[in-house]
Amino acid sequence: MVISESMKDLVANSSAIRKLFEEGIAMAKVIGRENVYDFSLGNPSVPAPARVADTIRRILDEQDSLYVHGYMQNAGYDDVRTCVADYLNRAFNAGMTAANVMMAAGAAGALNCIMRVLVNPGDEIIAFAPYFGEYRNYAANFGGRIAAVPVNPDGSFQLNLEAFPEYVNEKTKAVILNSPNNPTGVIYSGETLDRFNELLIEAEKKAGHPIYVICDEPYRALAYDNETVPYMPDHVKNTILCESFSKTLSLPGERIGYIAVPSDVDAFDEIMGALICANRALGYINAPSLFQLVVAECLDEKTDIAAYDRNRQLLYDALTKDGFTCVRPQGAFYLFVKSPTEDDTDFVNEGKKLGILMVGMKSWGCPGYVRLAYCCDYHMIERSLPAFEKLADVYGLRK
Amino acid sequence: MVISESMKDLVANSSAIRKLFEEGIAMAKVIGRENVYDFSLGNPSVPAPARVADTIRRILDEQDSLYVHGYMQNAGYDDVRTCVADYLNRAFNAGMTAANVMMAAGAAGALNCIMRVLVNPGDEIIAFAPYFGEYRNYAANFGGRIAAVPVNPDGSFQLNLEAFPEYVNEKTKAVILNSPNNPTGVIYSGETLDRFNELLIEAEKKAGHPIYVICDEPYRALAYDNETVPYMPDHVKNTILCESFSKTLSLPGERIGYIAVPSDVDAFDEIMGALICANRALGYINAPSLFQLVVAECLDEKTDIAAYDRNRQLLYDALTKDGFTCVRPQGAFYLFVKSPTEDDTDFVNEGKKLGILMVGMKSWGCPGYVRLAYCCDYHMIERSLPAFEKLADVYGLRK
Repeated sequence: MVISESMKDLVANSSAIRKLFEEGIAMAKVIGRENVYDFSLGNPSVPAPARVADTIRRILDEQDSLYVHGYMQNAGYDDVRTCVADYLNRAFNAGMTAANVMMAAGAAGALNCIMRVLVNPGDEIIAFAPYFGEYRNYAANFGGRIAAVPVNPDGSFQLNLEAFPEYVNEKTKAVILNSPNNPTGVIYSGETLDRFNELLIEAEKKAGHPIYVICDEPYRALAYDNETVPYMPDHVKNTILCESFSKTLSLPGERIGYIAVPSDVDAFDEIMGALICANRALGYINAPSLFQLVVAECLDEKTDIAAYDRNRQLLYDALTKDGFTCVRPQGAFYLFVKSPTEDDTDFVNEGKKLGILMVGMKSWGCPGYVRLAYCCDYHMIERSLPAFEKLADVYGLRK
Repeated sequence: MVISESMKDLVANSSAIRKLFEEGIAMAKVIGRENVYDFSLGNPSVPAPARVADTIRRILDEQDSLYVHGYMQNAGYDDVRTCVADYLNRAFNAGMTAANVMMAAGAAGALNCIMRVLVNPGDEIIAFAPYFGEYRNYAANFGGRIAAVPVNPDGSFQLNLEAFPEYVNEKTKAVILNSPNNPTGVIYSGETLDRFNELLIEAEKKAGHPIYVICDEPYRALAYDNETVPYMPDHVKNTILCESFSKTLSLPGERIGYIAVPSDVDAFDEIMGALICANRALGYINAPSLFQLVVAECLDEKTDIAAYDRNRQLLYDALTKDGFTCVRPQGAFYLFVKSPTEDDTDFVNEGKKLGILMVGMKSWGCPGYVRLAYCCDYHMIERSLPAFEKLADVYGLRK
């Protein structure tokens, strides 16, 4: 093989989600789009707010092309960074300025910059299972690895704080927290985060250096039942915020988000300077320019969460009634379902026979579960329900 | 320090160009914008063709927001990839389909994906001096390094083929060729490339594996005096094309380009599959979606090269008349000037005193030279000429 050693693993374990997404397209061509119930990909089903297109049109009319599409500092347009800081100050009393903000190519771009900055070959990043499977690739890009704390045995899918300390060692550089969580839909509570922070202080002593907490929260705007998502820096030290407009403004293809670092994190200047260097060195150069200008004017816009909420209730209620064991999602747009059979791959394959595409959670540190993305057409969920009934019957779940 | 070992070097050697760019902004605030002659950054000065904005407006009017801003396959929209392949077939009889094309986040994004795919820690990528300094960072991201073949002693700034073979070893994974060249403006001739290909075949035998030739050509559309830029795969085996719309369509901030791989390169399927995985794993996910759709409709558009040509002639003629030794650029928008004093940093600093911002070429493998980017306002060049005369007088160059 001509590709690098670490790419071999990556290609071999190529994202099951993406594969399913492409399988879904292929299946639709054969059995018809209406007979495929694709719950595989977190691709928003609610269009971007009208203000996005309006803002693009206005920018094209009013601003100089060289400004709109040109290079700027690697951190992003100063004005845009100021708008983001002001937004965080309004929302969370964050005490930030443009100097705390770097515009990034979505959360995935942000996470890769952070990994590039923190990870030496052999270093470890702690994640709590279940965790977004791509984190492993992001760490592996730079020779790092994810140390996965097992699922909380209490069934809450909150952080498994009991087990956390034993995963800390001198190689530990960071912890990733993802809330509202993909895949469980759980929001980590302020109380959980406060307890985590106490353990983090101990962990830093054990590691002998600062441990950064990467707060990956692309689903922040998606919280149901008036739940609030705690502002992580209020609870946890050394937080680096990774934000994305992929879900909030339904712009996943545009690759736009930002990193915000509170001034009181350890070695703030060093971290911020290195992140901006990493943005350049990793070839992002800068977050896409037009969309920087667009999101700066849409920071107070939110996607239509009511649409996702309807989907959530329809799917959760139906599957629970069918006898499946599901986590009731507090946020994001995923339903986390226990596989009725030990091997979630078998369950995923049973689903496929009925046109249902689900993602097995083995490679997300949580075997025996599947994830259903309900960011889809409401009518597709309705149409899928008879198929889920049949799937329940395969395992004799329905009473 | 809290950052990774390899980031320390990167931060310490943080791109001189970018620093100058930011220095220029700071200087302008102090001495006035009209007294700063900023030749530091390759930021196009010709606006994007009108068709770009027209196409954006039409897409927003006619297409579904979920399609325009949504996820698609990591390789990019199928239709867009087909348009790119068709364009290459029209232009170069390339024999490509969508399967040969991956949309990428500009040439820098493309190059990082290629490095991720090819480079094991310790591997080497050969570049011919002078070479774009950022290549070193792109290789270093994955533990690789640039092995730099010294400048051709014949003064032509064509490839130094004489020296090339001794830089090949079993760690050699690729060669980067950049034509029209940044920083010299030289176009590698078909004859040079044919001779290079013969040496490449020998080099592969010595290395014991395929060596890929990364053809980084963001300046392809910028060739003056009716020069043609040879289509690399017609001359060189195992070529991977990296293209960008940053200069062609004046969209550097939008981060849009593509990789095209001819079907006959060694291990085509493996390379192409791994590149698409790398696009995902490195956090690019996909090239920005709206601009994929835009460039697909602007493939036959070209930037106004006449404007750059006027700049080229004004600057080249004036500096030559002042007594500076300059390479006459065949393409791109850079003037490569010999420093009248041995240390180009001294020369750059002398220039700064007169408001002239130039980039020293020490970290580009070519000490004793500076680069002037003439992708700037014609009138700025006019205004700068008395300062260049004074600079020439510092070294007694004027007759």
